[in-house]
Formats: sequence, structure tokens, C-alpha cells
Amino acid sequence: MFFKFLPKDFNFFELLERQAEYAVEAARYLKEVVAQGVVDEGHLQKMHEIEHQGDEVAHAIIAQLNKTFITPFEREDIYALTKQLDDVIDMIYTIVNRLKVYKITGVKKELVEFAAVIEEATGCVASAVKGLRNAKDTKPVTESCIEINRLENVGDSMRDKVLAELFEKEKDPLQVIKLKDIYLDAETVLDICEDVANVVESILVKHA
Amino acid sequence: MFFKFLPKDFNFFELLERQAEYAVEAARYLKEVVAQGVVDEGHLQKMHEIEHQGDEVAHAIIAQLNKTFITPFEREDIYALTKQLDDVIDMIYTIVNRLKVYKITGVKKELVEFAAVIEEATGCVASAVKGLRNAKDTKPVTESCIEINRLENVGDSMRDKVLAELFEKEKDPLQVIKLKDIYLDAETVLDICEDVANVVESILVKHA
Amino acid sequence: MFFKFLPKDFNFFELLERQAEYAVEAARYLKEVVAQGVVDEGHLQKMHEIEHQGDEVAHAIIAQLNKTFITPFEREDIYALTKQLDDVIDMIYTIVNRLKVYKITGVKKELVEFAAVIEEATGCVASAVKGLRNAKDTKPVTESCIEINRLENVGDSMRDKVLAELFEKEKDPLQVIKLKDIYLDAETVLDICEDVANVVESILVKHA
Repeated sequence: MFFKFLPKDFNFFELLERQAEYAVEAARYLKEVVAQGVVDEGHLQKMHEIEHQGDEVAHAIIAQLNKTFITPFEREDIYALTKQLDDVIDMIYTIVNRLKVYKITGVKKELVEFAAVIEEATGCVASAVKGLRNAKDTKPVTESCIEINRLENVGDSMRDKVLAELFEKEKDPLQVIKLKDIYLDAETVLDICEDVANVVESILVKHA
Repeated sequence: MFFKFLPKDFNFFELLERQAEYAVEAARYLKEVVAQGVVDEGHLQKMHEIEHQGDEVAHAIIAQLNKTFITPFEREDIYALTKQLDDVIDMIYTIVNRLKVYKITGVKKELVEFAAVIEEATGCVASAVKGLRNAKDTKPVTESCIEINRLENVGDSMRDKVLAELFEKEKDPLQVIKLKDIYLDAETVLDICEDVANVVESILVKHA
Repeated sequence: MFFKFLPKDFNFFELLERQAEYAVEAARYLKEVVAQGVVDEGHLQKMHEIEHQGDEVAHAIIAQLNKTFITPFEREDIYALTKQLDDVIDMIYTIVNRLKVYKITGVKKELVEFAAVIEEATGCVASAVKGLRNAKDTKPVTESCIEINRLENVGDSMRDKVLAELFEKEKDPLQVIKLKDIYLDAETVLDICEDVANVVESILVKHA
């Protein structure tokens, strides 16, 4: 009888890890798409599928959260994590969608670089989330979080450099409007990864 | 004596419903204004009054929330609902204000269509909030929430279509900047309506 | 032995006050920079130091929050306050960074006026936070909050006026894009100051 009431902790960990994996998959696909320099309906469809699968995991987590009394760590931290992982995936989808809506073609070197940093950051997010299963061994989790913070700073510098160049060299204002939106989106993905790192770190502190 | 300590539940429902009604009124007025194709000081004043009345209800809800110990559903869900209803009304006000500040004149067919979708969505928001009084009968509430999600998807497609056309056909960059802001605001109203639907659905699950 | 378990309340007050002081310092430096009409690497570096010091206080507050069981007022209110004070400082940093990235030179009268209002608002924020030490004497705190709300309205009007003029008089679309971003950032600082006032007021109500 006792086991009947044991919290199914593993479920939350498993679901959060799966959601984080969709963020990694979305980032990997973004890198692929920007390296090709053109976004067609098929790319957007594929990206939409990844986003949709991520969504379903998020819904499962929130449904379980609403029904479960005992959770492996604080309810609002689980909620924040799943919300932020969802935001990461949504923002990557937004970039791909915007590339198509704005009809941006040609490989943009800066965006390819941004996509590589985003892929790295989502990898660290997945590691950090995975590390929560064993919150007593804080070292690997902390290292992932420090790396995410570093990558977010890298993204800030990249954004500043690329915007400064854009306003200096690009003479077509419509092109400036379009690319500025894209680069700001790219940097926003890294901001949200940093939000994930902050939540993960505060979970560690509470369980120290 | 016992009744003295009974939570005045009806008050929260009544106040949230009233706030949702101001969102509907704001949306209806937005539709009226964009169909006329020009925003003058009088229109903005009228919109400001609706927004102000909504504000007062929001303040009443938060004041009561801070003083009440027992609430009909979770404190943070009531707070989230009133904050989001406030955001819906504020964003509709922002659209009307922007039309005036940007001196946009002439009926924009796409904006008229957006306003119609926004009006529909706020109607569903009002139904969903009303349905919370009887949270055991989940069917009508769930139907309203599904409809809100559908309308948010419609809004996404409308925004993508209208932005693609804008960048393709409009040669004046200042006009692009202005209209892009307006259409993004319009879509944001629908995003916030979807946030309301999400909170309402999670309230239903908790009371299932 | 008893004293060992007494909550170190003064610490939270002291830390929040210190963080608010960094917001005031950031605002004062912003005013200085925009009055000079040019942002160089040195200015940005100095602004970055203020932001970094504010960050360290924020981390100290959150670390203590995660380790402390009894807090002088609700945990989520302390969290919200420190997050919003951090946002105020970040947004002021963003303005200075943007002035440099966009290579904006020359004293903009409207931005100088905005900076003065921002400095006033952060001063009121610091007073409101200081007043929390003695939450029973609500009058000075309430007066600071009312003044913050007034300044936020002033900021809304300033933003509308300056954007209307910008779209009417500035013929270079790139200049419009740049200045529009700067003025929206400036107004956003005041919005966040208003968020602080809202949290402070709700703390007062809970302790009435």
C-alpha cells in the first residue's frame, strides 16, 4: 500500500529532460536552416512539429503538477522551468518563422554564428536539467549554469557588434528592420536560457 | 456568527466578470474606431475611460485579495487572471493610442479583420471567466478556451500574412515601422487572451 | 540561544535599500551621459560597474531568501522587489549601451528630460523601499508610490509627444528606428518603477 502514495518523482525529471531535448533539437534544426540560407514551407513545418512535441510535454508536466501533491522540488520552480523551456523552443520557432515571413535569403554569417551559440546553450540547459536528478552533486550542474551565463554574454556582444555594423553599412531601411528583429530574437533565446540557469541554481541552493 | 467568517466568494467572481466585460467593451470600441479609419482625441478619451474603469476593478480585486484569507480558488490564479485581463485592456488601449500618435488614417482592411477576431476572443474570455462560478461543469469553459486557442492561431496567420505583404508592397519605411507595430500589438492581444485561457484551464484541473 | 534563531530582518531591508541606491546611481549617471551627448567606452564601462554592483546585491538577496525560513514580509514580494530593482538598473544600462551601439551623438533635449524624470522616479523608488522598514507608518511610502505613478504618466505623455514629432519631422528612417528604441526604453524604466510601487503598496496592505 505504501508505494501507492510515493510521489512519481522520476516522471517530472523525465518529462523536463524530454522537453529540454526538444529545445536542443530545435536549436540544431535552426543551425541547419540558417546554414542553408533559405526557409521554405517544409522547414517551417518541420520546426512546427518539434515545437508541437515540446508543447505536448509542457502540457503533460503542468497537468501532472496540478494533480500531484508531492513534487521533487518546489511546484513554482517546476512550473518556471517548463514555462522557460517552452519559451526557448517558441523563440527558436519565431526566428525560423520570421526568416520565412520576411523572405530573408542568403547565408548570414552572423546568424550562423548565433545559431551555433544557441545550440551550445541549449546543450548546457539540457545538462543542467539532467543534473537536477542528483541535486546533491552540484558541481556538473553549476558548471553548466556558468557556461550558459558565459554564452549569454557572448550573445550580448554578438548582438551589439552585428547591430552596429547593420546601422553603419546597410543602406536599405527595410533590410535593417528585418535583420534587427532576427538578431534580437536570437539574443533573446540566450536570455531565456539564462533564466533557466537561474531557476536551476536556486533549486540547488534550496536543496543544499 | 458563523456566517460572518464565510468567504465572500461571489465577490471575486463578480469582480473578475466585470473586469472581463471591460475587455469586451474595449475590443468592441477598437472595432468601431478602426472601421472609421481615424482616431481623434475624443476616441482616445473614451478608450481611456474604459481602461480606467477596468483598472479600478483590478485594484478592487487585488485589495480584496490582500485582505482575504480564504479565496474561491488559488490566490495566485486570481492574481494572474486579473493581471492578464488588465493586460488585455491595456494592449487594446495601446493600439488606439498608437493609431493616434502615429497619425494613421484610412480604414486598414487587415486591422478591421484583426479587431473582429479580438472582439470574438474577448467574448470567449468573458465566457470562460463566467464559467468559473460553476467549475464542476467544465464543458462550456473548456469550449471557450479551445475557441480562444483557435483564434490565437488565426491571429498568428493574419500577422504573418499582413507582415509579408507589408514588406513586399509598402515602399515607405516609416509606414512599415508604424503598421508593423500596430499589427504586432493586435496579435499580442490574442496572445494574452490565450494566457487567460491557460490559467482558467489550470483552475479547472485543480478543482476536478 | 533564542537570539540565534531570530530572523535577521534588517539584512533584507538593508540589502533592498542598497540595491535601490544603485538604481538611483544608474539614473544619475544616465542623466550625466545624455547631457554630454556622446557615449564612449569609458561611460559604458562605468555604467557596467554600477549594474554589476546592483547584480551582486540582487544575488545576495536571492541567496539569503533561499536559505531563510522567516522573512520580514512575504517571500514572493521580496523576490519581486529585487527582480524589479534589477530590471530598472538593467534597462538604464540598456539605454546607455544602445546610445553607443547606435552611435547616437548630440544632446537630445527630449532624452535629457526623460533622464531627469527617471532620476526622480528612482529617488521615489528608493524612498518607498526605505519606508518598508516602518510599514506601520504608511503615509511617506504611499506618497512616494503616488509620485511614481504620476511620473509614469508624465513619461507616457513624453513618449507619445516625442514619437509623434519623430515620425513627422525626421526624414531618415534609420534615425527613426534608433531614436524610437531609445525613447521606448526610457519609458519602460518608468513602467518598471511603477511595478515596484505596486509591490510596495501591496506589502503595505498586507501589513495594515
